[in-house]
Amino acid sequence: MRDLLQDRDAWSMENCSIARAFEIIGTRSAVLVLREAFFGARRFDDFARRVAVGEPAVAARLKELTADGLLDRVPYQEPGQRTRYEYRLTEKGRALLPVITALRDWGDIWAAGPEGPPVRAVHRDCATPVRVRLVCDNGHDVRSDEVEIQAGPGLITTTRPA
Amino acid sequence: MRDLLQDRDAWSMENCSIARAFEIIGTRSAVLVLREAFFGARRFDDFARRVAVGEPAVAARLKELTADGLLDRVPYQEPGQRTRYEYRLTEKGRALLPVITALRDWGDIWAAGPEGPPVRAVHRDCATPVRVRLVCDNGHDVRSDEVEIQAGPGLITTTRPA
Repeated sequence: MRDLLQDRDAWSMENCSIARAFEIIGTRSAVLVLREAFFGARRFDDFARRVAVGEPAVAARLKELTADGLLDRVPYQEPGQRTRYEYRLTEKGRALLPVITALRDWGDIWAAGPEGPPVRAVHRDCATPVRVRLVCDNGHDVRSDEVEIQAGPGLITTTRPA
Repeated sequence: MRDLLQDRDAWSMENCSIARAFEIIGTRSAVLVLREAFFGARRFDDFARRVAVGEPAVAARLKELTADGLLDRVPYQEPGQRTRYEYRLTEKGRALLPVITALRDWGDIWAAGPEGPPVRAVHRDCATPVRVRLVCDNGHDVRSDEVEIQAGPGLITTTRPA
């Protein structure tokens, strides 16, 4: 199996999935809004209070994340109040939990203060910590030096590889 | 076991590991520089050619990522040339592979074009795709609705939880 790293100058990265993912979630306030959504926040006031970036920024992030299909905007009405909207993670949004968890895992180890991390995520069934792991489809744990990058179906090459 | 989500208004998120991680890697160009480092890039010209954001931005990212301890700046010298520097991932930088992989996994599914993802990562030993998985310390696969958030050692509460 040929390792395409040797040919990487021939690769176009214009349709890179990492870049595309980052274009959708790639602001600090978007990530913090998503964090709160995973923590259970649904209403604007909850997001605004917990993501301390100012109400206009929170409103902008909720609008963008809804437009990108990560949140559903659902009407609700308290007695005697006008109709308002709450925000719920869609399947596309929930699928970001490994990204959020990978950031938290890394931050817990490499960026936490001396007192340790503020929260931990545990498996409800067995109460042990939940982390992300790099695993192959045969179930092996994979170290970073065991990852090989290959051409996928959408690779665009700008020159013909040798 | 008490689920602290009920008390989340008492939590201070000032030392949130997700936010801290994002402050270090949270620009699109930083993520793309890290992508190229994982692909094997070491020299400024390689990063600049592959991360098409302009040389000043690439230089700024390399400087920041080095200052944050994700890259080591190592001198090298070609015959007859002045000493130059290349950039190598440190242990702290290599530890970001799950973050990059989680972004790629998500982008492959939710943001790739109709032609499919441009690259895939496989396990060198068995040639099957490598992904991130949410796993607990007992080795169970964990679904997003099975994750419980609890207080960690560094949690700062602003009011006393009930």
